[in-house]
Amino acid sequence: MQLWLTEDQYQSFALSYKTKETLHVEKTKYQHLAVVDTEFYGRMLVLDGIVQTTEKDEFVYHEMIAHPALSTHPNPERVLVVGGGDGGAIREIIKHPSVKLARLVEIDEAVVRNAKKYLPSISCALDDPKVEVIIDDGIKHVAEHKDYYDVIIVDSTDPIGPAVGLFQHLFYQSIYEALREDGIFVAQTESPFVNIDLIPDVVAAISNIFPIVKPYIATVPTYPGNLWTFTMGSKKYDPEEVATSRIPELDTKYYTPKLHKACFALPRFAEELAFSKVNK
Amino acid sequence: MQLWLTEDQYQSFALSYKTKETLHVEKTKYQHLAVVDTEFYGRMLVLDGIVQTTEKDEFVYHEMIAHPALSTHPNPERVLVVGGGDGGAIREIIKHPSVKLARLVEIDEAVVRNAKKYLPSISCALDDPKVEVIIDDGIKHVAEHKDYYDVIIVDSTDPIGPAVGLFQHLFYQSIYEALREDGIFVAQTESPFVNIDLIPDVVAAISNIFPIVKPYIATVPTYPGNLWTFTMGSKKYDPEEVATSRIPELDTKYYTPKLHKACFALPRFAEELAFSKVNK
Repeated sequence: MQLWLTEDQYQSFALSYKTKETLHVEKTKYQHLAVVDTEFYGRMLVLDGIVQTTEKDEFVYHEMIAHPALSTHPNPERVLVVGGGDGGAIREIIKHPSVKLARLVEIDEAVVRNAKKYLPSISCALDDPKVEVIIDDGIKHVAEHKDYYDVIIVDSTDPIGPAVGLFQHLFYQSIYEALREDGIFVAQTESPFVNIDLIPDVVAAISNIFPIVKPYIATVPTYPGNLWTFTMGSKKYDPEEVATSRIPELDTKYYTPKLHKACFALPRFAEELAFSKVNK
Repeated sequence: MQLWLTEDQYQSFALSYKTKETLHVEKTKYQHLAVVDTEFYGRMLVLDGIVQTTEKDEFVYHEMIAHPALSTHPNPERVLVVGGGDGGAIREIIKHPSVKLARLVEIDEAVVRNAKKYLPSISCALDDPKVEVIIDDGIKHVAEHKDYYDVIIVDSTDPIGPAVGLFQHLFYQSIYEALREDGIFVAQTESPFVNIDLIPDVVAAISNIFPIVKPYIATVPTYPGNLWTFTMGSKKYDPEEVATSRIPELDTKYYTPKLHKACFALPRFAEELAFSKVNK
């Protein structure tokens, strides 16, 4: 017997993975959670039927949501991750020696608990002394902190279910206020091959709040569309202006100083889509 | 009833597309050929069960196999495409005004015939007066031309079936000899997420022949691994040294002058894989 896990996108295309074993299934307070072991991508965390992270390709997303911002800020000390309960972004953040506090605020304790149990290569930094894990609503946490963080990373699920509020203008305004005067914000912002309605709205909303707005890209095989965007909003520092010599050489599999600059070169259709609703 | 086209990779992961209609199926002299209309990616050319090109995302591959080399060469006049019978690479090549001859050598006439009939947005340049279509073995054609071409592009299928010889050292040597003294060669060289055995061998073989060897990347949603590599072998010009001001602004959807530079920044794992068999 063969078992395949299929993630169906808009009932028109699908990514499927031959599975070895379903390790865990749980209905959490917020979503359906599964951990499945697959032949090609290793163990996967699946929320509401959507693949969130896999042992084989998680490094792309986690390195690229963390390092461009942390290498742009000259001295990031306090870093917040909203969502990202698997711990992958946190693992990358603490590679930067200036970081004194890497705080994770995840709404669903089941994500953290299962990542610790089933995905140790991803969650391995969650017990580091610099790391603080808070189970709470990220929107509330951000609203309660003013002028506090150097970098805020929104590592959310897709803009359906519990993550809807994380893609809205009011939240970006609240993030701006939670950042210090030279703070940087990054969010995952989906694929320009697939999410053509979301990206222009998000980039326009961030452009209305932050003086420097830079979408950038990475390739994630297990995310639909694969060409994945992140969007950085920065109060002071331009990530493309950082001297390459100042970008640290880190222990990474995807990110490099050269790629730090290159990731801001978007394909023309993606650049045009991203800025299509921004007032010039 | 729902019909889905599934491309199964190594029996461990798969990409599937909901279909509207199968427009054509044919057993050619070399391979099984199908043209299928799908909901999300439009019409697809499928050879031996592997998606070759789709109306929705073909621009990525065709622009990126053509423009980096053609923008690097200061005056490309004679350009050869080996394979690429759908005509997409040819369509991009003739956007460069210096090109006087864009010659396509495709082994399987059925690919050209069906692309003309079913994929007009891709094959549209095949009747241009600068374009010559020859149905022949590309290996033989290249061997019969010495010191003739400015740019040679190997737009092959995967290294199984009729394309095996297009990934071999002897062919690269023959290409070197078919190029003028400042010629440039480009081949599609698969994905570092999937084809981990092929890429080091190909890059090493090209490095043994060409003084300048540069793998570069683009993201193709319908190719397995998605992070796609091309490898450029150049006799004289370094594509990363071209002044951005000299790179033409073309009518493109993916390629831009900024991306010309950025595409040579490989993720660390891909860079390390590509050069793992090259003698330092």
